[in-house]
Amino acid sequence: MNLIDIDDFDVPQLHRVLDTAAALKAGEEEPPARLAGASLGMLFERPSTRTRVSFEVGMTELGGHAVFLGKDDIQLGRGEPIKDTARALSGYVDGVMARVKTHEDMLELAEYADVPVINGLSSEAHPAQIVADLLTIREHCGFEDTTVAWVGDGNNVGASFLVGAAMVGLDVAAATPEGYEFNPDAVERAAAYDGEITVGHDPDAAVADADIVYTDVWVSMGEEEQREEKVADFAGFQLNAELLAKTDDAAVMHCLPAHRGEEITDDVMESERELIWAQAENRLHGQKGILVELL
Amino acid sequence: MNLIDIDDFDVPQLHRVLDTAAALKAGEEEPPARLAGASLGMLFERPSTRTRVSFEVGMTELGGHAVFLGKDDIQLGRGEPIKDTARALSGYVDGVMARVKTHEDMLELAEYADVPVINGLSSEAHPAQIVADLLTIREHCGFEDTTVAWVGDGNNVGASFLVGAAMVGLDVAAATPEGYEFNPDAVERAAAYDGEITVGHDPDAAVADADIVYTDVWVSMGEEEQREEKVADFAGFQLNAELLAKTDDAAVMHCLPAHRGEEITDDVMESERELIWAQAENRLHGQKGILVELL
Amino acid sequence: MNLIDIDDFDVPQLHRVLDTAAALKAGEEEPPARLAGASLGMLFERPSTRTRVSFEVGMTELGGHAVFLGKDDIQLGRGEPIKDTARALSGYVDGVMARVKTHEDMLELAEYADVPVINGLSSEAHPAQIVADLLTIREHCGFEDTTVAWVGDGNNVGASFLVGAAMVGLDVAAATPEGYEFNPDAVERAAAYDGEITVGHDPDAAVADADIVYTDVWVSMGEEEQREEKVADFAGFQLNAELLAKTDDAAVMHCLPAHRGEEITDDVMESERELIWAQAENRLHGQKGILVELL
Repeated sequence: MNLIDIDDFDVPQLHRVLDTAAALKAGEEEPPARLAGASLGMLFERPSTRTRVSFEVGMTELGGHAVFLGKDDIQLGRGEPIKDTARALSGYVDGVMARVKTHEDMLELAEYADVPVINGLSSEAHPAQIVADLLTIREHCGFEDTTVAWVGDGNNVGASFLVGAAMVGLDVAAATPEGYEFNPDAVERAAAYDGEITVGHDPDAAVADADIVYTDVWVSMGEEEQREEKVADFAGFQLNAELLAKTDDAAVMHCLPAHRGEEITDDVMESERELIWAQAENRLHGQKGILVELL
Repeated sequence: MNLIDIDDFDVPQLHRVLDTAAALKAGEEEPPARLAGASLGMLFERPSTRTRVSFEVGMTELGGHAVFLGKDDIQLGRGEPIKDTARALSGYVDGVMARVKTHEDMLELAEYADVPVINGLSSEAHPAQIVADLLTIREHCGFEDTTVAWVGDGNNVGASFLVGAAMVGLDVAAATPEGYEFNPDAVERAAAYDGEITVGHDPDAAVADADIVYTDVWVSMGEEEQREEKVADFAGFQLNAELLAKTDDAAVMHCLPAHRGEEITDDVMESERELIWAQAENRLHGQKGILVELL
Repeated sequence: MNLIDIDDFDVPQLHRVLDTAAALKAGEEEPPARLAGASLGMLFERPSTRTRVSFEVGMTELGGHAVFLGKDDIQLGRGEPIKDTARALSGYVDGVMARVKTHEDMLELAEYADVPVINGLSSEAHPAQIVADLLTIREHCGFEDTTVAWVGDGNNVGASFLVGAAMVGLDVAAATPEGYEFNPDAVERAAAYDGEITVGHDPDAAVADADIVYTDVWVSMGEEEQREEKVADFAGFQLNAELLAKTDDAAVMHCLPAHRGEEITDDVMESERELIWAQAENRLHGQKGILVELL
């Protein structure tokens, strides 16, 4: 199977992935023997620190090996159809993790590869991040009666988070500026699950009952020219001390990299309420859970 | 020993490499213990997908490790003589696989390295591809009474293929456009072996008795400016349904990446006659045979 | 602990690192079991051949794994603060080796990382090179009554070498052109140890009692525009046959890459007096000693 978005898992499968991740992290479980010597191809059309290192180290700790292919290393974009790359790679590796420029490329890769394909961030979805997020929330306060506020852009991470959170029964109260709403398809898919999802445009309302406030960058890679416009559009959506004061000691999540002074303030990032580095570390453990499930 | 071109092997050695590759592929043989922990340095002055991934995964599956050095990672071309890189690398790794810009650089690397050097594609030769090709042909129809047609450019892959095919007793009927003939040195070296090599300019004649038709790109990396001219020069040499109809159900090989609509048509690539993905996968197995022989 | 410069080790620790390196090289010692499966992150904001390959192979031979992050792979310099990269990486790897643009970045990385940080060359220091140098000198003639002449630029390698050499009791006679003196802080730190350090501007005087003459490039990466000026400033400081003739058969060291015809002549590099390739190979062994000590 492929993991293009988080709901490619069914609910029991997602819980099993989280259980495996937690057990491997705690040292209570050994990696399955079948992963010894396995290879994961990693295609990166965009740069990455966390995704790259956490997948490579995770694969190594599972007894396997990851092959990193950067944008200058591969023939993608120099005229070779993705389907040809997919079929050739399938002859060499046991799975492919890909961060490609468009979601269509991701889907074509998954269609033609004979091995599992894992989305390492596309314009639409970021399921590997969501597994780490859910693991972090489970560790911090569990899924029962927990509300997470998403404040900021209704982007790819946010859309996948709505779905994944709903799958494990989390309530999500989201606030995005007008014009930056979530993909309606994601909201609809999330609505099919247990968690209650509320989407709106009021940060204060979103954080009112939040146990955790989660935000992400306003200005993504490649959008630098739109910075001024986006910063203006997001006025009032900054995760700062003032907004946090409206919560009952909520914790703070951010999927990184952060732009201090834009979507989050330095004092909030450096405060005791942050789960950010635990969340970053859980990329490693969550992805080990994914790899064990898929390969 | 080094593998700069396929006839650096003698005939029994080439058969042994193919036997090892087949046995490792079938799981009938274990990698030799001496390769556990061995390191292969991989120098790439030009990008690559298949060569890179297949050597790296192959080395890993043999129990060793490959270090990838891309064109931005190494000092080659920034004034460090190749002989210095060769001598320094020899202190760290058990073998070097190199894709360098000129064949002279390849020869200098081999001269000064104290460890085996494997040509991963130079302007003159591509022996690692040829081992995969021969393995594919051996699997498909064996070497007895087999004729392969080479239709297209008399390039580096073609030249090495003539020699390697002749070494195992294959007959090759080749057709190149005028002005795109094979390196005469390769034709002469091929003539010393059992296989019968015929070179000419008539695609129809070349494919008449072919069990397999093999082609390669007309426009290589870095030649994009010559595209229009080359496409005109190669008129009539496209591997398409019409040409294939002149054979007795011949199979199709291509060493990839393919430019559909130029040297090969999409329908031929996607047809049941293609051995192309098996051939691509055999890069992995063939190179494991090479590594076991050399390291 | 971190290794930002060589005197982050105390003297017994430096000797222990050299002992470990020598024992691993001779096969008299096995890598410690705790390094099996360990991961080293390697950040390179500048390219490298020797540092890259020797750390990666060294880590592999110790039973671990190295993750290479080149300048295009990481978010450093695209607005993510180094402290954030340091904290995220600390969740994935057991140590970080970094070649970053400024010494300040190196210090910030070390401050915020929760795992050991090893300087893989900064504008101020190159401790990993020094361990290899000392191992080479110990193998060649030991540290007792040994004098090393440093002739050329008072650069980062030279500064670290003064300190490391003094730590193991070597005498160093250095000659730099005026205007290219060593960082006074390094000279002062070196003075605190056993070896006698003499710094001046006269190459002939420096080499008079030398057992070994050591030089390094005049024109580093990124300084190509200053080539003409620097070559003029360094007139008389070339390590050539004439200068070597003023020694009592001194050996020659160079930390590579070399610019033949500038700081060293081709005949000296290719002569029997060179320890250069042994020194290059010792990067591998020396760094294994460092990794065993730190991780």
